[in-house]
Amino acid sequence: MSLRPTLDFLLYDWLDAESLSQRERFSDHSRETFDAVLDTCERIAREKYAPANRIVDTQEPHFDGEKVVLPQATHDAHKAFVESGMMSAAQDYDIGGMQLPYTLQAAANSFFAMASVSIGSNMLTSGNANLLMVHGTEMQKEVFAKNEFSGRWAGTMCLSEPQAGSSLSDVATRAVPDGDGYQGDPLGPRYRLTGNKMWISAGDHELTENIVHIVLAKIPDANGKLVPGTRGISLFIVPKWLVNVENPHPGPLPQAGEGEAGSVKVTLGSRNDVALAGLNHKLGWRGTTNTLLNFGEGKYPVDGKAGAVGYLVGEPGKGLHCMFHMMNEARIGVGTAATMLGMAGYHASLDYAKTRPQGRLVKKAEQPGTAVAKDSASPQVRIIEHADVRRMLLAQKAYCEGALALELYCARLVDEQKTGNAQAADDARLLLEVLTPIAKSWPSEWCLEANSLAIQVHGGYGYTRDFPVEQYWRDNRLNMIHEGTHGIQAADLLGRKVLMEKGRGLQLLGGRIAETIGHAAKVPALAAHARALDAAWQRIGSATQAAWSTGDPADALANAVPYMQAFGHTVLAWIWLDVARRALEIDADKARAVTAGKIGATDYFFHYELPKIGAWLNVVESRDPTCTALPEDAF
Amino acid sequence: MSLRPTLDFLLYDWLDAESLSQRERFSDHSRETFDAVLDTCERIAREKYAPANRIVDTQEPHFDGEKVVLPQATHDAHKAFVESGMMSAAQDYDIGGMQLPYTLQAAANSFFAMASVSIGSNMLTSGNANLLMVHGTEMQKEVFAKNEFSGRWAGTMCLSEPQAGSSLSDVATRAVPDGDGYQGDPLGPRYRLTGNKMWISAGDHELTENIVHIVLAKIPDANGKLVPGTRGISLFIVPKWLVNVENPHPGPLPQAGEGEAGSVKVTLGSRNDVALAGLNHKLGWRGTTNTLLNFGEGKYPVDGKAGAVGYLVGEPGKGLHCMFHMMNEARIGVGTAATMLGMAGYHASLDYAKTRPQGRLVKKAEQPGTAVAKDSASPQVRIIEHADVRRMLLAQKAYCEGALALELYCARLVDEQKTGNAQAADDARLLLEVLTPIAKSWPSEWCLEANSLAIQVHGGYGYTRDFPVEQYWRDNRLNMIHEGTHGIQAADLLGRKVLMEKGRGLQLLGGRIAETIGHAAKVPALAAHARALDAAWQRIGSATQAAWSTGDPADALANAVPYMQAFGHTVLAWIWLDVARRALEIDADKARAVTAGKIGATDYFFHYELPKIGAWLNVVESRDPTCTALPEDAF
Repeated sequence: MSLRPTLDFLLYDWLDAESLSQRERFSDHSRETFDAVLDTCERIAREKYAPANRIVDTQEPHFDGEKVVLPQATHDAHKAFVESGMMSAAQDYDIGGMQLPYTLQAAANSFFAMASVSIGSNMLTSGNANLLMVHGTEMQKEVFAKNEFSGRWAGTMCLSEPQAGSSLSDVATRAVPDGDGYQGDPLGPRYRLTGNKMWISAGDHELTENIVHIVLAKIPDANGKLVPGTRGISLFIVPKWLVNVENPHPGPLPQAGEGEAGSVKVTLGSRNDVALAGLNHKLGWRGTTNTLLNFGEGKYPVDGKAGAVGYLVGEPGKGLHCMFHMMNEARIGVGTAATMLGMAGYHASLDYAKTRPQGRLVKKAEQPGTAVAKDSASPQVRIIEHADVRRMLLAQKAYCEGALALELYCARLVDEQKTGNAQAADDARLLLEVLTPIAKSWPSEWCLEANSLAIQVHGGYGYTRDFPVEQYWRDNRLNMIHEGTHGIQAADLLGRKVLMEKGRGLQLLGGRIAETIGHAAKVPALAAHARALDAAWQRIGSATQAAWSTGDPADALANAVPYMQAFGHTVLAWIWLDVARRALEIDADKARAVTAGKIGATDYFFHYELPKIGAWLNVVESRDPTCTALPEDAF
Repeated sequence: MSLRPTLDFLLYDWLDAESLSQRERFSDHSRETFDAVLDTCERIAREKYAPANRIVDTQEPHFDGEKVVLPQATHDAHKAFVESGMMSAAQDYDIGGMQLPYTLQAAANSFFAMASVSIGSNMLTSGNANLLMVHGTEMQKEVFAKNEFSGRWAGTMCLSEPQAGSSLSDVATRAVPDGDGYQGDPLGPRYRLTGNKMWISAGDHELTENIVHIVLAKIPDANGKLVPGTRGISLFIVPKWLVNVENPHPGPLPQAGEGEAGSVKVTLGSRNDVALAGLNHKLGWRGTTNTLLNFGEGKYPVDGKAGAVGYLVGEPGKGLHCMFHMMNEARIGVGTAATMLGMAGYHASLDYAKTRPQGRLVKKAEQPGTAVAKDSASPQVRIIEHADVRRMLLAQKAYCEGALALELYCARLVDEQKTGNAQAADDARLLLEVLTPIAKSWPSEWCLEANSLAIQVHGGYGYTRDFPVEQYWRDNRLNMIHEGTHGIQAADLLGRKVLMEKGRGLQLLGGRIAETIGHAAKVPALAAHARALDAAWQRIGSATQAAWSTGDPADALANAVPYMQAFGHTVLAWIWLDVARRALEIDADKARAVTAGKIGATDYFFHYELPKIGAWLNVVESRDPTCTALPEDAF
C-alpha cells in the first residue's frame, strides 16, 4: 500500500501545490518536477530506509573506545540521501539547491520518516545549515553551511544541558574570548567554550568527516558572572575537527563529496576539545546516536590548552533569537515524524487486518436483545470485518491522514511566508505562530495513540518484535518530549501565541475556519459538521477568555495542556472538514474510494473525537485548581 | 515511598477486611496475621523482585539448544516466593494452605506485580492448580495440583493456537484415545494430543523439575471430525515430563521441595512429546518466557510413537466451562498487574518530581493578560511545583489508586462469593460478572496512560533505559491484549454481562452505586460529585437501552469499546466517591495527608475524567455506523 494517493490528494487537489510554480522562485518547477522529487524520495525510502529500520533498532549505536559505531545500513542510507540532493533541496540554485518549495520538501521527507524515522538525522544538518544561511557571516556560510548542504559534514543543535532541559535560561556553558586577537579570526570571533551538553542527537558518529555543532553558551560579564535568563545566550559554531581555510574567496557550492567549498579550500585540522561523555540508551529512535558531550574539559587540548574553540554566530546575547528562527520548521519536522510513524503503523495494521482470519461476525440471536450468536461452523472472517477492528483502523486513518494534512498545510504557510505578497506573508507568519504548537504536539499525542491501536489490531503478534508496530510505538514516544515537551507547547500556545498581537493570530485562524464552515454548510453531507465546528471554535474562544479572565498566568496556565488538547482537536476537525469539502467538490458522488475514505474519516472525527473537547475545556473555563492546590504531601 | 499506607487504607478502613476473620473459614486470622503476610510479601518483593526487574528485561529468556535459560535472579525470586507459602495461601489447611482470604492474597500479590511484574509466573501455576482442585480427580489433585502448590512443579494454560487467538472455538489441537485401555489410567482417561499452542507463558524453563500444561483440545467424533465451536473443547493435563505414581494413597500436601505428595510417591518418567518450537520476543514482560509449543510432533515419542500424552480433566466437551471457572480471578490478576505497573511509574515519577529542579513558576506580568513573566535570577524550582507536572501526577494517582481500589473491591467479592451467605454470595457472583470486564480492561488502558505520564514527568530521562519508567510502559502494553483483548472484554460486557439474568447484574451494581450516592450527597464536599455520578449512571442505563434498541447485536456492539470506556470511567467515579466518602467519615477535617490525597484524586476524577463519558456514549446511543459502513477499499 502506497502513501502516494494520500499525498497526491493533499498536495495537488487540496493545497494546490502546483500553483506554487507560478511564483518566481519556483518558476522552473511544475507538477512534473515535483513528482520526480517524490518518486526519487519514495524509491530511496523503500530501498535504503525501510529495510534497515529494524536493524538500526537492534544494532544500537555503541562506542568502541575510539569512535561511535553505526550499522552499515545507516551509512548507506546517509549516502543515498545526500546523493539525492534533498539536503539542500530548498536552497538557492547558486549554492547548489533546487529551489524546491518547502511544501514539497516536507512531503518528500515524509517518505523517509515513514520508512525509518531514526536512521537519518538530516533534518538537524539542514536545520543547522539553514540557520547559518540566515545568521552566519559569508565565510561561515561558505565553510560550514555549504559543507553541510553537500553532505560532506553533518550538523547538530546543542541546546540542553543536564541541569537545563526545558529551562534554557539556565544554560551554564561558558564562552570566553580566545586570546587578544579573538575578533580577527576569518571564521568569526573566536571563543573557548566549557560546559556539558545533554541529549545531543547525532552528537558523534563517523557518517561524515566532520560534525558542526551549533552551541548555546553564555559569555560572562566583566565580573565573570553569567547573565541570568535567556538574554545572556549566544550562539557558537563548534566543529568536532578544527578547520583550516585557504584561499578564502567564497564561490558556488561544491557538488556532494567534493573537498572544496567554491574557491575556499577547506581542510581538517586537529581535533577540537569536544569529547563524547556518554551515549544515551533510549526506548526507541535508536538509529540516531544521542549523546552527552563535554565541551572544553581538556581531553583534546587546542594549542596546548583546554577549551573548545567556537566561533560566534550573530550578535552576542541574541542566540535564542537566532534559534527561534528555526523553531517552526523544526517543530513541523517533529510533527511530521510523529505523523509518519503513525501512518506506518496504520498501513501495517490495515494490511494485517485485511489478511488475518480470526473469529466470526455476531448475528441476531433468536431472543432479540438477550444474546449474541455466532455461526461457529462457518469459516473465520478476516479481522477487518469486525466492528471494533474497523473502529481502530478508522481512528488511525483520521489521526494520521489528518495530521499529515495539517503538517502540509503548515509547510504551505512556510512557503507563503517566504514567497507570498506582503499581507499573505505576514498572515502566514502569524498563523504559523498559532498553529505550530499544534503541528508539533497533536501528532505526537494522537499518532502515538494510533501506534497503540496498530499494536492492538495485531493482537499478541503486535506485542512481538516479529512485527514492526511495537517499534513504531516506541519510536513515537519521543515526540512528546523533544523539541519542546507537551507542557512547553501548551504554555507557548495559551501563554503567548493566542495573546500575541492582541489576539490577531487567533482571529486570523478563526477567519480561515469560518471560511471552511461557510463552504461546508452548503454541502448537505457536511452541514452538521460545519455547525459542530462553529460551536467548537466559539467555545475555544470563550475558554481562552475565561482562562485569562483573572489576568494571572498561574490561573490561566493551570490547565494549559487540556486547553491545547481541545484546541488541537478543533484544528484537526477544521482540517478534516476542509479536506472533505474539497473531496466532495471534486467527486460529489463519492465515486472514488479516496473520497469515501476522506468522508468516512471526517465523519469519524466529528462523531468520535471532536466531542472530547467538552471535558478538556471544562477545567480550562473554570481555571480548575484541583492539581495546583493539592498539598505536596497528599500526592 | 511505600505502598503500604494506601493498601492499609483500602483494606482496613474502606473494605473492612478485618471483619473477614469473623467467618469460619478465616477464623484463625486477624489483622495481625494479615499484616504479617503483607510484611513478608513486601519484604520479598523489595529484596528479590525489585532489584531484578531490569535484569529480566535485558537478559531475555533464550534457548541454548537444549533448555531455556533464565537469569539467576529469576530462580532466586521463584525460590523466595515458593518458600513464602503464597502459592497455596488461599488453599485449605489440610493441603498445606493458609486459608487466607483472597482479598489479602490479592493485596499481597500487588507487591510482587509492582516490584517486577514479569519475573514470576506464579499466578499461572496457582490458577492451574486451583482449576484442578475444582475439576480434577482426587489423583489429579494429589499428583499435579499439590506438586504445583508446593512449588515443586509449575503450571501453564495452553489455550491459543496460531490460527485461534481470540477465537477459541477454532482450536484445532486433536486428542485421541491412547489405545484400548485409555480409560484405565490412574491419572485420568489417557489421550494423545497433536497440535500447536501459541503465546504459552512459562511454557518452557528450568525453574522447576516439571511443567504441568493444561491444554484445550478437541476429541474428534466417530468420523474423525472436530466439533465446530466451543462445545467441542475438552481439557487435558499434559506434563512436560511423564510421571510415575507409586503407592497411590492420597494424603496431606508435602512441604515445598519434597519429592512426595502425601503417601503417593511421584517420580518423573520420560519426556512427554511436547517440544519447544520457538520463543516469542516481546516488547516487554520479558521476565516470563513466552513460547510456541508443538504437541505430539514426534520429537519425543512416548512408547515409540508420536503424540503428547494427556489426561482428561472433567467431562469431554466441557473444557471451556472448566476454564471459565478461573476466568474472573485471572482477569482480576491481569487488572492488578496493570494497576501495579501504573503505581510503580507513579511512585517513580513522584520521587523524581520532588527532587528534580527545572524552570521557574510563571507570574503575573505588568500588563495583565498579555504576557507571562518568570524571574530568571531566582533558583530553579522542583518540577512538582509546576502545574502541568502536578496534573500528570494527580492523574496517575487517580488512575492507579482508583484501579487498586477496584481490584481489591472485586477480590472482596470473590471472598463474599465463597464464604458469604447464600444471597450475598449470589449477589457477589453476579456483580463480579459485570465488574470483571472493567477490572481487567480499565487498568490496562488507564494505568498504561499513567505510565506514559510517568515518562513525560521524567522528560528526556524517562525515554532512556537509565530510569525504570520506560520499562513499565512497555510491560503494561501487554495487558490490553492477553487474557481477552479490550475488544473481547467490551463485547463480553455489552453483549453478555449487562443483559444476563434480565439485567439483574446491572441493577445490582446500580444499587451499590445508589448507596454510595446516598451517603455522599449528605457530605457537602462530595454532594456535587454525587449528583454527577447519578447523572452518569442514568446515562449508562439509557445508552445500554439505546444500544440494544434494535435488538441486533451488530448495531449494539458496533461501539462496544467506547461503551466499556464510559462504563469503566463511571465505575471508577463510583469507587472514588465511595473511597472519598469513607475517608471523610474517618477524618472529616482532612487532618491527615492521606485524606487530602483521596479527596484531591476524587476531585480530579470528577472534574477531569468523568466528563469524558459524554463523547464515548454519543456514538453508543446513536449506534453510530461510521466505522462499520465504510467500504473496505476506502480505508
